[in-house]
Amino acid sequence: MIRSVLPRFPRSLILLVPVLFLPLPLAGAGGDAGLPNLLLTVAAMLVAGKLLGEAAERMGLPAVLGELTAGLLLGAGVLGVVPAAGQPGADHIRLLAELGVILLLFEVGLETDLKEMFKVGPAALAVAAVGVAVPFALGYLYWLRGPHAGTADSGDPVTVAIFIGATLTATSVGITARVLGDLGKMDTAEARIILGAAVIDDVIGLVILSVVSGIAAGGTVTVAGVGGTFAVAVGFLVAAVVLGNLLVPRVADRVVRMRARGIVVGISIAFALALAALAAQVGSALIIGAFAAGLILRETKHATTVEHEVQPVAALLAPIFFVNVGAAADVSLLDPTKPGAGAVLLVAGTLTLIAILGKLVAGWGAPWVRFHRLTVGAGMVPRGEVGLIFADVGRQAGLLSETTFSIVLIMVMATTFVAPVALKIIFARRGG
Amino acid sequence: MIRSVLPRFPRSLILLVPVLFLPLPLAGAGGDAGLPNLLLTVAAMLVAGKLLGEAAERMGLPAVLGELTAGLLLGAGVLGVVPAAGQPGADHIRLLAELGVILLLFEVGLETDLKEMFKVGPAALAVAAVGVAVPFALGYLYWLRGPHAGTADSGDPVTVAIFIGATLTATSVGITARVLGDLGKMDTAEARIILGAAVIDDVIGLVILSVVSGIAAGGTVTVAGVGGTFAVAVGFLVAAVVLGNLLVPRVADRVVRMRARGIVVGISIAFALALAALAAQVGSALIIGAFAAGLILRETKHATTVEHEVQPVAALLAPIFFVNVGAAADVSLLDPTKPGAGAVLLVAGTLTLIAILGKLVAGWGAPWVRFHRLTVGAGMVPRGEVGLIFADVGRQAGLLSETTFSIVLIMVMATTFVAPVALKIIFARRGG
Repeated sequence: MIRSVLPRFPRSLILLVPVLFLPLPLAGAGGDAGLPNLLLTVAAMLVAGKLLGEAAERMGLPAVLGELTAGLLLGAGVLGVVPAAGQPGADHIRLLAELGVILLLFEVGLETDLKEMFKVGPAALAVAAVGVAVPFALGYLYWLRGPHAGTADSGDPVTVAIFIGATLTATSVGITARVLGDLGKMDTAEARIILGAAVIDDVIGLVILSVVSGIAAGGTVTVAGVGGTFAVAVGFLVAAVVLGNLLVPRVADRVVRMRARGIVVGISIAFALALAALAAQVGSALIIGAFAAGLILRETKHATTVEHEVQPVAALLAPIFFVNVGAAADVSLLDPTKPGAGAVLLVAGTLTLIAILGKLVAGWGAPWVRFHRLTVGAGMVPRGEVGLIFADVGRQAGLLSETTFSIVLIMVMATTFVAPVALKIIFARRGG
Repeated sequence: MIRSVLPRFPRSLILLVPVLFLPLPLAGAGGDAGLPNLLLTVAAMLVAGKLLGEAAERMGLPAVLGELTAGLLLGAGVLGVVPAAGQPGADHIRLLAELGVILLLFEVGLETDLKEMFKVGPAALAVAAVGVAVPFALGYLYWLRGPHAGTADSGDPVTVAIFIGATLTATSVGITARVLGDLGKMDTAEARIILGAAVIDDVIGLVILSVVSGIAAGGTVTVAGVGGTFAVAVGFLVAAVVLGNLLVPRVADRVVRMRARGIVVGISIAFALALAALAAQVGSALIIGAFAAGLILRETKHATTVEHEVQPVAALLAPIFFVNVGAAADVSLLDPTKPGAGAVLLVAGTLTLIAILGKLVAGWGAPWVRFHRLTVGAGMVPRGEVGLIFADVGRQAGLLSETTFSIVLIMVMATTFVAPVALKIIFARRGG
C-alpha cells in the first residue's frame, strides 16, 4: 500500500520547496526576528506541517507523524527555521503552540461522549487501569534502575522516573478512532472497549499530568502532595462538568440565537480559555480546564455548531504545537556514526518496547468479558498527542534533559507509527 | 427603532458581568501576567467584544463600534484588564491583534471583486479620488495650521499632519456594504458606485499607509521618498496579483484535493502570512500583502471554500485588534469636567466635521453620471477598520500622541456611527 502511494509523493512535496528557502531571508535579517520574520516562521511551520501531515495520511499513517517530522526538519538541527527557546520570537511561537494544545483538548472534550463511556463501563475501566498501571510501573522501574548513558537529566532521579512513567500512560483516542474508522470497524465490541478505555486513559492521563506538573514545579514527591494534586484535578473536572451542565446550556441557547458574526466561535473559545486559566489557578493543568470546557459544551444542544466553528481554528493552531515539539528534538541523536549514539538509541528502543508491551497486556485486563484481546491491546498502543504534551511539560520544567526529551519523542513517534500498521495486519488476519 | 431594541439589552449583557470581575484574579496574581492571566485577558476581550458587538448590531449599528466600546471599558482608564504597552503580556496581545488585522485584510481581499470594480470604472474612480483628495487636503491643512491645545505630538509637524490627512482618506467597504444589504439596496446604481469607490479607496488607502509607514520609520518627507514608497506599494500589489494569478490557481487545485484535516485553512493562511511578510520586507505594509493574498485566492475556483474556512479564524482574531485599539484610547478625554477637555473635544469635533464633509462632496465627484449624490456621499463617510489601522500605526510609531490618537479614534467612531443612521434616513426620505 505504501508502494502505490509513493508515485504521488513528489507532486505535493513540490510545494515544500519554498519552505527550504526560508532560512535565507530569516538569516538575512541579521538574527533579529521582528514581526515579518515571525510571520514567515509561522507560515513555514504551517506549510511543512500540513504537507507532511498529508504525506503521512496518504501512507496510511496519522497526520501527527508528518507534523513532528516537519518539526524535525525545521528545527535547529537541520534548517533552523523554528527559533529555539531563548531565541527571538520563540516566546511568541510558544504562545501560539499553547493556544493550539488548549484548542486541541477543547476539541477532544467536544468529541468525548461521557454517556457512551459509562455504557462500556467496567470492561473499559479495567482495560484502561491495566493500560495505565503496567506501562507506568515498567517505565518508572526501568528509568530508576537502568543505566542511561548520556541522558544527563538534572532533576531528582525519582521525579524524572515518575515523569517517564507518566509519559507512557496516555492513549491517543484520536489516532485509534481514526484508524478504526478507516478500517470500517467502529461498530465492533473491540472498538467500543478501545475507545472507552482510551477516553478514560486520557482523563487519567490528564490527572497524572496535573500531579506530575505539580511535582515539576515543587520539586519533591510526597504521598500527601500527590494525593492533593490528584484530588484537585479530579475535583476540578467533576465540579466544572456538574456546575457547567447546570449553568451553561441556558447561556448557550442565548448565545446561539445572537447574530453577530463569529459570536459562537468567539464566546466558546473564550469559555475554553477561561476554564483553562481557572484550572491552572486552582493548581491543576491548563488542558484539564480546556477538556472540561469541551465536555460541558458537548452536553448542550449546540455541540455540533460549536465543533464546526472551532474546528478550523484548532486545525490551524494545533500543528504549530506539534511542529514546535518536533523542532525541540535533538536530531543528531539519530546519527548512528556519532559516539555514544548506540547507547542512546538502545535506551529509546527499550522504552519503546516497554511502551508497546505495557499497553498490549491491557487487552487481558477484563477477563470476564469476551473480545479479541490482541486487537484491544494493539488499539491502546499509540501515545500520540497526549504523550507529547507530557514530554513537553517535562522539557519546559527543565526536568527532562534534551536527550531524554528526544528519547521520549522517539518512543511516542514509534508507538504512533506501529499501532495503525499493527491494527491493519490484525484485522486482515482475523479475516475482517 | 432603538427603542424597540432596548428591552432586550440587559439579557445579553448579563453575560458581561463575569468580565467585570476579571480584574480581581488578574490583580491577585501580583502584577506578573503569566499564561493563565494572559488567557483570561484574551477571554475577557473576546466576550466583551462579541457581546457589545451584538448589542451594537441590535441597535442597527456596526459591530465594530461595540468592539471599540469593549476596548474603552477594558482599557487602563476603566477596568484595566487589557495590559498597556510595556506591561506584561502586552506584546503577546499585540501579536494576536496583528494576526487579526492580517486575517481581516485577507478576508477583505477575498471579498473584493476586481472585475466588478473595473465595470463601474470611471465614475467610481472619480468618486474615490475626490473622497481621498478632499479629506486628505482638509485634514492636512487643519492640523498644520490650527491650534491644537494639549495634543502634544512629538513628531515633525508636517509628518503628523500628513498622518492625520491619511487617516481621513479610508472608506470602510464592510460597514457600507452591510448597511446597504440590510436596507435591501444592494442592486441600486448608488450602491454599485459606493462599493466600487470604497474598494478603490481601500487600495489607495493601503498604498497611502505604506507611504506614511515609510515616513514614520524614516522620519523625513521628500517627494522622491514618497514617490518611491508609492511605487513599491502599487508595484507590489500589481506584481503579486499578476504573478499570483499565473501560479496560484494550479497549486490551489492541488491543495483543495488533499484530505488532511485543515489543509485549506492552514495553507491559505500561511500564504497570507508569507505575502504579508514579503510586503513588509520589500518596504511596503504587512496588510498590503495580506490584501494581495486575498485578491489572488479570490480569482481561483476555490474562493468560497477558502472564505468559509478562514472566516471563523478572522472572526476570532479581528475583535482582539479592535478591542486593543479601543483600550489604547485615553477615556479621561471624554470627561467634560477635566480642565482642557473642552479644547480637545473641540478639535475632535472639528476633525469629525471635516471627515464627514470631505467624504460627502465625493458624491459630486462624477458629474457626467446620473445618481443620487447625497446617498453616495453619505455611503463614503464611515472610516471603520482601515481608519483604525492607520491611527494604530501612527501610535505604534510614536508619531501620534496619546491625545491625538484618542481624537482620531473619536473621529473614526463618530463617522462609523453617523453613516448607517444617515443612510437609513436618506433612503426613507427618498421613499425607498
